[in-house]
Amino acid sequence: MAILIMFNQVDPKLLEVHLKLCVDCPEVRIYPDVGDKEDIECVILWKHDVGLLDHYPNLKLIASYGAGIENIINDPSLPSDVPITRFIDDTLSNQMAEFVLGSILNYRLNLTHYRELQASSNWRGEKIKKGKNVTVLGMGELGKATAKLLHLNGYAVSGWSRTKKKNQFIKNYFGNKQLKLSLVNADIVVCLLPLTPETKFILNKNLFNILKKGTYLINVGRGEHLVDGDILDALYHEKLSGALLDVYSTEPLPKDHIFWKHPKIHMTPHVSSPTDKEKVARQILDNYARIKVGDEPINQVNPKRFY
Amino acid sequence: MAILIMFNQVDPKLLEVHLKLCVDCPEVRIYPDVGDKEDIECVILWKHDVGLLDHYPNLKLIASYGAGIENIINDPSLPSDVPITRFIDDTLSNQMAEFVLGSILNYRLNLTHYRELQASSNWRGEKIKKGKNVTVLGMGELGKATAKLLHLNGYAVSGWSRTKKKNQFIKNYFGNKQLKLSLVNADIVVCLLPLTPETKFILNKNLFNILKKGTYLINVGRGEHLVDGDILDALYHEKLSGALLDVYSTEPLPKDHIFWKHPKIHMTPHVSSPTDKEKVARQILDNYARIKVGDEPINQVNPKRFY
Repeated sequence: MAILIMFNQVDPKLLEVHLKLCVDCPEVRIYPDVGDKEDIECVILWKHDVGLLDHYPNLKLIASYGAGIENIINDPSLPSDVPITRFIDDTLSNQMAEFVLGSILNYRLNLTHYRELQASSNWRGEKIKKGKNVTVLGMGELGKATAKLLHLNGYAVSGWSRTKKKNQFIKNYFGNKQLKLSLVNADIVVCLLPLTPETKFILNKNLFNILKKGTYLINVGRGEHLVDGDILDALYHEKLSGALLDVYSTEPLPKDHIFWKHPKIHMTPHVSSPTDKEKVARQILDNYARIKVGDEPINQVNPKRFY
Repeated sequence: MAILIMFNQVDPKLLEVHLKLCVDCPEVRIYPDVGDKEDIECVILWKHDVGLLDHYPNLKLIASYGAGIENIINDPSLPSDVPITRFIDDTLSNQMAEFVLGSILNYRLNLTHYRELQASSNWRGEKIKKGKNVTVLGMGELGKATAKLLHLNGYAVSGWSRTKKKNQFIKNYFGNKQLKLSLVNADIVVCLLPLTPETKFILNKNLFNILKKGTYLINVGRGEHLVDGDILDALYHEKLSGALLDVYSTEPLPKDHIFWKHPKIHMTPHVSSPTDKEKVARQILDNYARIKVGDEPINQVNPKRFY
């Protein structure tokens, strides 16, 4: 019996260490050193190479290393009878909420901009951006925590989600019909959607055209939510005043990508809510133990909803 | 009867406009175009040229344009029988609190640092700084509002002030004897003190030596709180991991000052809590009206306490 880690773009060693620190941890193998495939009862995945999941006859649990599961759901070799879980915890939600609040304050107060002026010994005060209407696209665990923290800090928050939700203290919008309504008054738009066929490329010119001139965009969802060419147009025509991007369609972003040098795009390297390795190790081993005694795992995913 | 504006380093024109928009505004003059000095009943000061205040025989009110009044108190020509007021309002306190929270998040989440890495197409994730112990030096209006907002956002706040204060939700320290105690556990130190003979140069090597290695400093008090040479030493020896400075002993900071090029000093050009010109105009005219009918002005300063 063994657990297999199949990662791309993230080093599996740290997770391996935290798994092995748990007394109830079975043998851990790291792809491609799989050994006898019949031993594998659990795989932990992050942006794995798709097409290989049907090679494991005794697989009982597929665990995503993060909150997103689009790479798993889109794997054509995904067995239909193995439960899929994702990582959810308060730390992740709170870190995301903090990251978004920090990004908003940084934009409104021009903090990074002043550091850029400093490089040329430029003593010039800029106006604080006063607009505090924030629209959060996606009201899952991360979206809810973010909306709550922004509300607490005096922002007027609108939340848009695919299905109807009732969150306190914010204006709730749902479904395609209300997308426009949720965005027309936004000073700042935050994308925290799951990546699904419906949300792929949702940050496109049609959406940008709904916005007031000078809206700020924060994408902490997935790179594939955004049409790269459309954001460049929207920035050029000042529909967007700027953007903070934490996620990209290819990660790391290729060195020659135009985003790197764009004066109005503030890039962060997919750091908005790093997975706590100790916690994810514990959560996966707990689910593994549940599966072994025939119980349902927690944080199970509905593959048809993509989250 | 006239009001005289005597400013340095700030353009008086905008305040003049906002004063004149009020129906009860008397004539406004801008120094050095004083006209007949007997007409002047109120002066509004910001970093004014000292030594001239005894030239106004009918002066009834001295109003500071901001929250600080050290330049007024230190003026040897200050008449002893004219009430001095300063500008206090919620907007100012809330803006300061937001500025400090934004600066802390920017530091902890490395947001500006990522923008610097972006310039060299460097995809490198940094650790979030986890420490959330913040010590606020100075628990006046601005300090209290800042401590409250930080507490609301999950920080463990200690507040130090000259005299004993009891603020809820924070650890209260006061007096010289408790200064060290208030600082030993700080991950982040925020200076929001008034500038007095006791607090001048308080941010010196003795204070830095109290701190844990790697503490972050935010000075939004006055430039004269800081010994410039001592912060350079503390940064060099990594007693401080970095600093955000918004105020300087000379403003604008001279172009050849070493702070401009320092990799660990994030400079902002005295923008942490800009005075709302509309509100300050209204507050001063209200006080002027009070004085004229023999009432006490609001937000009056006790010159012996320096605030």
